[in-house]
Amino acid sequence: MRIGVLGTGIVGRSHAARLVDLGHEVVMGTRDVSRSLSVNTVDYMGNPPLREWLDRNPQVRLTPFSEAAKHGEIVINAINGMHALEGLHLAGNENLDGKVIIDITNPLDFSRGMPPSLFISNTDSLGEQIQRSFPSARIVKTLNTMSAPLQVNPRLLMDGDHHTFISGNDPEAKRVVVQLLEDYGWRNVIDIGDIASARGPEMVLPIWTRLLGVLKTPMFNFKLVYER
Amino acid sequence: MRIGVLGTGIVGRSHAARLVDLGHEVVMGTRDVSRSLSVNTVDYMGNPPLREWLDRNPQVRLTPFSEAAKHGEIVINAINGMHALEGLHLAGNENLDGKVIIDITNPLDFSRGMPPSLFISNTDSLGEQIQRSFPSARIVKTLNTMSAPLQVNPRLLMDGDHHTFISGNDPEAKRVVVQLLEDYGWRNVIDIGDIASARGPEMVLPIWTRLLGVLKTPMFNFKLVYER
Repeated sequence: MRIGVLGTGIVGRSHAARLVDLGHEVVMGTRDVSRSLSVNTVDYMGNPPLREWLDRNPQVRLTPFSEAAKHGEIVINAINGMHALEGLHLAGNENLDGKVIIDITNPLDFSRGMPPSLFISNTDSLGEQIQRSFPSARIVKTLNTMSAPLQVNPRLLMDGDHHTFISGNDPEAKRVVVQLLEDYGWRNVIDIGDIASARGPEMVLPIWTRLLGVLKTPMFNFKLVYER
Repeated sequence: MRIGVLGTGIVGRSHAARLVDLGHEVVMGTRDVSRSLSVNTVDYMGNPPLREWLDRNPQVRLTPFSEAAKHGEIVINAINGMHALEGLHLAGNENLDGKVIIDITNPLDFSRGMPPSLFISNTDSLGEQIQRSFPSARIVKTLNTMSAPLQVNPRLLMDGDHHTFISGNDPEAKRVVVQLLEDYGWRNVIDIGDIASARGPEMVLPIWTRLLGVLKTPMFNFKLVYER
């Protein structure tokens, strides 16, 4: 399948590499290709320069947001939450029209220091903002409640015995996303409702960031425990 | 131990009954004793009138908030979140001074319909508001992320193989609370930090209410899955 991955950080890279492994044709989108390639230092999270990563992942082609979105039958939104709407506007409504958009973003605001707060929450969510801004796209929020390595390979932790959630307005889009999640190795996907239900997983981030501090590892997730 | 339970809803009743079973001397506080006893219908959650419940739990004495708080070496705040601060003011600063206050409240706002939003979140929490309002009390936030039956008897679900969190500024108060939680049957208690970390578990409520709708049972909880 042709998949456009928007964003070149650890989330975008993790998805792009995993999707190539799964046999998909992946194009990675960025705001400014030459600027992205000019970085030659590790980022604040310790990730190597994008150019090095691309050298090791030659099947991933780097293009502007618009070309990656146009390429994708499915588009993965892995842009930093703070710039997600702007990035999608650069991708272009005409390149997102009717497509399944997997939205992994979080509305994290680091401007007040650590731990971060959310720049939108409670009575709205970033998932909803994106759906309202691109009404003909089919937004499915998922995977925003765990670290990138677990997003694309949940079996790395307890053989996948933990959960992710999906929110979205379009049942067929959700079916497409659940299939991709299963290809990633997800065993437990819970559909929690329409795109407004994205408020729930986005508001998990404050406890997630606290737990990151306590556990000193990003390799954790929540398992929903209930009597079946 | 002498324990004051503030609040007569399902949360207060569950704690009061369980604490009596564990051998504690429990006094339950309410705003207006005669009004609480005059109710003779089931409430909106299907709970029987308080008078009937007290008849079946004769070791629990019903008093005004202030008397229950004065009685308690530990005070459990199980007041409806919307009225929690007002109820604690009625309990009286002098009756809370220096005491461990177990805060189970959630800032749920049902005024916009279902699912509820939060009337405080993100850059503040109800736990912090209470600590600020009663600086000489030792607030420990816990148990707000699961239903009342599971709060007091976690082994009812998967033999307790799931988690609760604690937040608070006073290490000794947290030790007291962890002991009580273990007496309830909790096996997994994670200290996530100072009282500001209460934002995390309070912001779990939006996904919790969505999951309640999906699972059609309140007998669920989250298990934190990580490599030890």
